[in-house]
Amino acid sequence: MMNLKRPTLLLDRKKCLKNLETLIVKTRASNIRFRPHFKTHQSAAIGQWFRDYGVQHITVSSVNMAQYFARDGWKDITLALPLNHHEIDDLNHFESDIAINLLISSVETAEYLTRHATRKFGCYIKIDTGFHRCGLNISEIPTIRTILKTLSNHSLIEIKGLLSHFGHTYSATDTEKVTQIYHDGVSLLQDIREYFISDYPGLEISVGDTPSCSMLPGFPGVDEVRPGNFIFYDIMQEQIGSCQWSDIAVGLACPVIEVQPERKEVITYGGSVHLSKDYLTDPSGDKKFGAVCLPGKKAWSAPLEGCFVKSLSQEHGILSCSDTFLSQAKPGDWIVILPVHSCLTASNMGEYLTLDGLKIKMMGKD
Amino acid sequence: MMNLKRPTLLLDRKKCLKNLETLIVKTRASNIRFRPHFKTHQSAAIGQWFRDYGVQHITVSSVNMAQYFARDGWKDITLALPLNHHEIDDLNHFESDIAINLLISSVETAEYLTRHATRKFGCYIKIDTGFHRCGLNISEIPTIRTILKTLSNHSLIEIKGLLSHFGHTYSATDTEKVTQIYHDGVSLLQDIREYFISDYPGLEISVGDTPSCSMLPGFPGVDEVRPGNFIFYDIMQEQIGSCQWSDIAVGLACPVIEVQPERKEVITYGGSVHLSKDYLTDPSGDKKFGAVCLPGKKAWSAPLEGCFVKSLSQEHGILSCSDTFLSQAKPGDWIVILPVHSCLTASNMGEYLTLDGLKIKMMGKD
Repeated sequence: MMNLKRPTLLLDRKKCLKNLETLIVKTRASNIRFRPHFKTHQSAAIGQWFRDYGVQHITVSSVNMAQYFARDGWKDITLALPLNHHEIDDLNHFESDIAINLLISSVETAEYLTRHATRKFGCYIKIDTGFHRCGLNISEIPTIRTILKTLSNHSLIEIKGLLSHFGHTYSATDTEKVTQIYHDGVSLLQDIREYFISDYPGLEISVGDTPSCSMLPGFPGVDEVRPGNFIFYDIMQEQIGSCQWSDIAVGLACPVIEVQPERKEVITYGGSVHLSKDYLTDPSGDKKFGAVCLPGKKAWSAPLEGCFVKSLSQEHGILSCSDTFLSQAKPGDWIVILPVHSCLTASNMGEYLTLDGLKIKMMGKD
Repeated sequence: MMNLKRPTLLLDRKKCLKNLETLIVKTRASNIRFRPHFKTHQSAAIGQWFRDYGVQHITVSSVNMAQYFARDGWKDITLALPLNHHEIDDLNHFESDIAINLLISSVETAEYLTRHATRKFGCYIKIDTGFHRCGLNISEIPTIRTILKTLSNHSLIEIKGLLSHFGHTYSATDTEKVTQIYHDGVSLLQDIREYFISDYPGLEISVGDTPSCSMLPGFPGVDEVRPGNFIFYDIMQEQIGSCQWSDIAVGLACPVIEVQPERKEVITYGGSVHLSKDYLTDPSGDKKFGAVCLPGKKAWSAPLEGCFVKSLSQEHGILSCSDTFLSQAKPGDWIVILPVHSCLTASNMGEYLTLDGLKIKMMGKD
């Protein structure tokens, strides 16, 4: 296993490029802007792979991340979190040749921005089409109107459009349901746009969760998509139906540190500080914190039948194992865990090791 | 709120010192070694607070952490995870004046160590008294004997004793249950020691989860305790009964970015990359990812009645709110979230800000 010493996040570059190319082709065919979310990988080196495919617009989830990618030469960045008032100074200080797009979801924040903006900002109104996290819904047309009016009074603010995250596709489990969420959501966004299109003729529609972007053949009715997770995928996306296990591009290599034959369990060095505590629930009610694969010469095997990560503490993982796997497992072996949620695993690990031995660093956390 | 910009982990030094002093006094009264687990804070500066109280022995959960604290002058370190074969070279390279204690839980690993140790190591045999994560149990006396024999054949290896983590106290909810787990566990360890005491007369007993260490008045029958979480505590420990909310020494300051009056929810910038995804389950079955407090001039309020963190995504938190809190909440406000599991929150954040404005860095992750 490449002389690894400790839990290491392996990255299959070829799979990333294949996942990326699929989205590039689809978004081009739909003739829409592809603005991938870089919170999944948080890495300038991986960002370069996108650039090599002609990507120029990106999404980030924090001001720090925007600063990191701006330093790396990205010139058009959407910060996909409702504006945090306390970061306005940092936002005002971006170089003037960098387009920064903000999300606004309240009159208070629209007013705050108009009082404090000292440079150009693009603004999207955050719309909730059913995920129920952030955003305004169709019953709040008067509020949306007030926000648009407030923003349009400021000479440095350009109103861009309506933006939504269909996060409820994450609880879907088939293409039909995901397709329905997409079409219902887009239709709702178009309905909202209808109210304002005469006053704001250029209003765009921006959407883009990984399940929709992976499962739909094209993206009618929108101007851009912003998926992030698709570059790595994970077993949550596999369960939803966004990918096959063979598309999953990251795996956590972990040393076996103990075998418990009676409990049919194997203990790994590799716990929640590495994988994160996201889990899937089996039909039987069992929690599953990752799939278990064997390392190969160049990559990793298919997930082992009858094996899964059943629990995690800070540094340990407990694998529930099949008799076959158990009969051969011993301390010192390596296994590869496919994560439930690759964004959080990557964020925890802070760096990648590609299968050809290249270390890729992620942005620092501050 | 001290001119904060974004999610920031606040640290109340006075509470830490009080939590620390309580354990110092108790362990001195019990006349046992106090070997606190530094995985909770992972910080040289906080380690110094322990040193100021005379602490000289520590526990860590990774070789990197041992290296970090060794560089900071710590001379007696127990690595409380069964030995990972692939880190033996790094372990062999510690300076010779640093005592390194390892955990052994299998014959394979004992043999591996005897083949590869090139410097002195202390060894504890990891015993499972009912938590069912790592370790050997009382039905495996022959295996324990083989391990002890294997290790004792190596001139550089010193057999130290039996070590256990009573992690099952974390699912207890009262002093009586925690006390019972402690006494049953210690009694089991003493029974196991009986088998070997004639051949290995100096065998120590090392235990030490935070609930036991917090709730028991003294520690009969053991030679050392190794609690970690107690320095910060968290709402999981409060639920178990290890502490009051007022003992919790870390809180995540988060900006409010949106208010959803209809859903009675407030959205924070502050999500699973900050807090971690550990949760408590209410009697009603609701998941709770943190308690919600108001920032004060010097610290934070008691948890707000009827408010809790109901879900987390990567960067957002959703707070379920009381009418009182909701009526005054607006974007730009700050709230302070008491974490469910402070070790993971600290590990995610990587640095602290003390209430007197001092930035404290944690070790790097590599």
